[in-house]
Amino acid sequence: MEDRNAVSRRKFVGGLAAAIGYVSTGPNLDLFAQGRAAGQGRQPAGPTLSSADAEAQYDAMAKLANNENNFGIPDSVMKAMTDHWKYAGRYGYPGAGVQQAIAEYDGIKPENVLLSHGSGEILSIIGTALLQGGKKVIGVDPTYASVYSHASNIKAEAIRIPLTKDHRQPMDQIIEAANKYKDEVGFVYICNPNNPTGVIVKKQEMKQLMESIPAGMPVLIDEAYHHYVDDPDYATSMPLVNEGRQVIIARTFSKIAGMAALRIGYAAGPPELLQKLRVYQGGVINVLAQYGAVAALKDKAAMADVKAKTIALREKTAKDLKALGYEVIPSQANFFMVGLRREVQPVITAFREEGVLVGRPFPPMTQHLRVSVGTAEEMDRFLVAFKKVMARPATTTAQGQ
Amino acid sequence: MEDRNAVSRRKFVGGLAAAIGYVSTGPNLDLFAQGRAAGQGRQPAGPTLSSADAEAQYDAMAKLANNENNFGIPDSVMKAMTDHWKYAGRYGYPGAGVQQAIAEYDGIKPENVLLSHGSGEILSIIGTALLQGGKKVIGVDPTYASVYSHASNIKAEAIRIPLTKDHRQPMDQIIEAANKYKDEVGFVYICNPNNPTGVIVKKQEMKQLMESIPAGMPVLIDEAYHHYVDDPDYATSMPLVNEGRQVIIARTFSKIAGMAALRIGYAAGPPELLQKLRVYQGGVINVLAQYGAVAALKDKAAMADVKAKTIALREKTAKDLKALGYEVIPSQANFFMVGLRREVQPVITAFREEGVLVGRPFPPMTQHLRVSVGTAEEMDRFLVAFKKVMARPATTTAQGQ
Repeated sequence: MEDRNAVSRRKFVGGLAAAIGYVSTGPNLDLFAQGRAAGQGRQPAGPTLSSADAEAQYDAMAKLANNENNFGIPDSVMKAMTDHWKYAGRYGYPGAGVQQAIAEYDGIKPENVLLSHGSGEILSIIGTALLQGGKKVIGVDPTYASVYSHASNIKAEAIRIPLTKDHRQPMDQIIEAANKYKDEVGFVYICNPNNPTGVIVKKQEMKQLMESIPAGMPVLIDEAYHHYVDDPDYATSMPLVNEGRQVIIARTFSKIAGMAALRIGYAAGPPELLQKLRVYQGGVINVLAQYGAVAALKDKAAMADVKAKTIALREKTAKDLKALGYEVIPSQANFFMVGLRREVQPVITAFREEGVLVGRPFPPMTQHLRVSVGTAEEMDRFLVAFKKVMARPATTTAQGQ
Repeated sequence: MEDRNAVSRRKFVGGLAAAIGYVSTGPNLDLFAQGRAAGQGRQPAGPTLSSADAEAQYDAMAKLANNENNFGIPDSVMKAMTDHWKYAGRYGYPGAGVQQAIAEYDGIKPENVLLSHGSGEILSIIGTALLQGGKKVIGVDPTYASVYSHASNIKAEAIRIPLTKDHRQPMDQIIEAANKYKDEVGFVYICNPNNPTGVIVKKQEMKQLMESIPAGMPVLIDEAYHHYVDDPDYATSMPLVNEGRQVIIARTFSKIAGMAALRIGYAAGPPELLQKLRVYQGGVINVLAQYGAVAALKDKAAMADVKAKTIALREKTAKDLKALGYEVIPSQANFFMVGLRREVQPVITAFREEGVLVGRPFPPMTQHLRVSVGTAEEMDRFLVAFKKVMARPATTTAQGQ
């Protein structure tokens, strides 16, 4: 049985690659394995597996590539969704009350909430709203690059500032750039904790940023991984909304609530700023996702359980990797980066041969591997694969690819 | 029992109105009862019902307001969706193959397909893509007004041409305007069959349009109700896609497939034109909706069944109304308009008191009522209510409102 699986996992590589090259509507493992919504637009490319075979092969993998919640959707959330199939064909249903539920959860008002198809949509429409006409976004590199790619799509530009050597977001430089280019800047982008590193911006640093950039310059604070943080030096930026600051806080139900493919997230911010974004928002959110989100916000025990399991497995895996002699960047999210001291792309490919999907490369950090925290069984499979892959000399790791 | 229901339906009005005024994430019955995706942005307004009470009251109504498919989601579609809950927390799932399935269904190529959150999203993003910078959209009035409202939101304009006296879209005038204002026009909008009238544009008229407008002027053809048409003078405009014409055909799974609240639709068109829209599309579509859409396209028997039931009930109801002495506009869609010879707004209110939700006013046709085709039981309730409401003098119908 174990052997059969092993063989099946080896055979898997070409098949899945072909299948995925063909698939155009689901996010793509190679190009879009970033942990959030991808656009569409992949075109057919060669032969494919049957959909049943592709599913079976995908299902057999350890899925540590996309910062998903591998513990699954909480029972309370599933129940809320399946209880509302009756509205699947409706426009006029009474409504799940999700803006109100979010407002209560975050201590803001319903008019401070704009629902979206995942927080990824917020990261796009803020560009459409604030960057058109030659404006620029300021942010670090690497970070979650969706903001930059959308800016590029609409012919806007990004000022990308490298992380510090210890992988922090250099506030002094961000502030300097914000002031230097103030007339050209549409907004500042801060991902906190940052993806792909998992490193937080401390609350004192956020305070420094908000006090030092030009008055009224919008700041997008992407808190997709907020719910996993337990560092006392971190704080959500949600209070800035009540202070009336020009901030957009992006949140998602894709991570802690496990609803990535159901597509629901939100922006919190002042109503006038939200209104600029709302014009470009893609309409009503899937009804099941709405009811699921309300249930997720109310099930604090489920959130705490996911957080605790994730942190315990992240710290255990980090400890094991350090024991093997590898540097692990301290993370506050449901993923972490391990330094490989070799190029990451052949390692990613080798992991796939072992039936383990791991994160894509994040240039310029091309010698770091991003690993999402999965179940205990998946983290065991990761460690077994890690030892095997890294035991090979770096030069031959890519053999056969 | 009958009495209790009647009382409950009467009491319902204020309660539901209050509940709906409060609800901000679901489409609003009053403002958005147009048959497709609405934006967000409703703010809390006064007290509300408990969500369970609001649901019970809504569930008890005959729902003939929103051009929904009241026969429910086909079993094959439900099975395809519930079979894929396993991917609800994923980004990297193999993909439902929905673009390929659409391409096969419509006889086009996958690169001619852009998925969207319902076809309503297409009606917005085409404006963002083609109307910015002072461009205009040309279309008729009344029609599905989403295109016009988005144009207004982004400070673009609409040239709105009245329907003919027999409720057709006047091609000569549309063509004249397209040529007269050719340098200012972003695109032409044709809803076929038209909403709210249900009247088709004949294939000869579409041919005339495409031959007579300036070369390369984009045309958005909204075929949301395509699947209900059985008039031999109608033809889908999908072949124009294969001819490489500058058309966007909008389709939806909200109507014939009964998936309105799951939010999936698409645009068909040339890849270069789709690419202009794609930049503003709100990201990946809900995974369940993707798998459901594929199943819906394959279950031609279910589509035929919905179409046959809808047409039979539409024609029976129209016959009954004509027997009562009312004009019914011949419709090819899952709704129709009946001429009231009095203002429609008080009638809509009176219907609600009878437990029947009917369409909102569509100015300037303020003496016509739009009625969606529901189940046989709902159409019976509609007719009973119609006789009762219209038996009252017009002047007192609005009493108490």
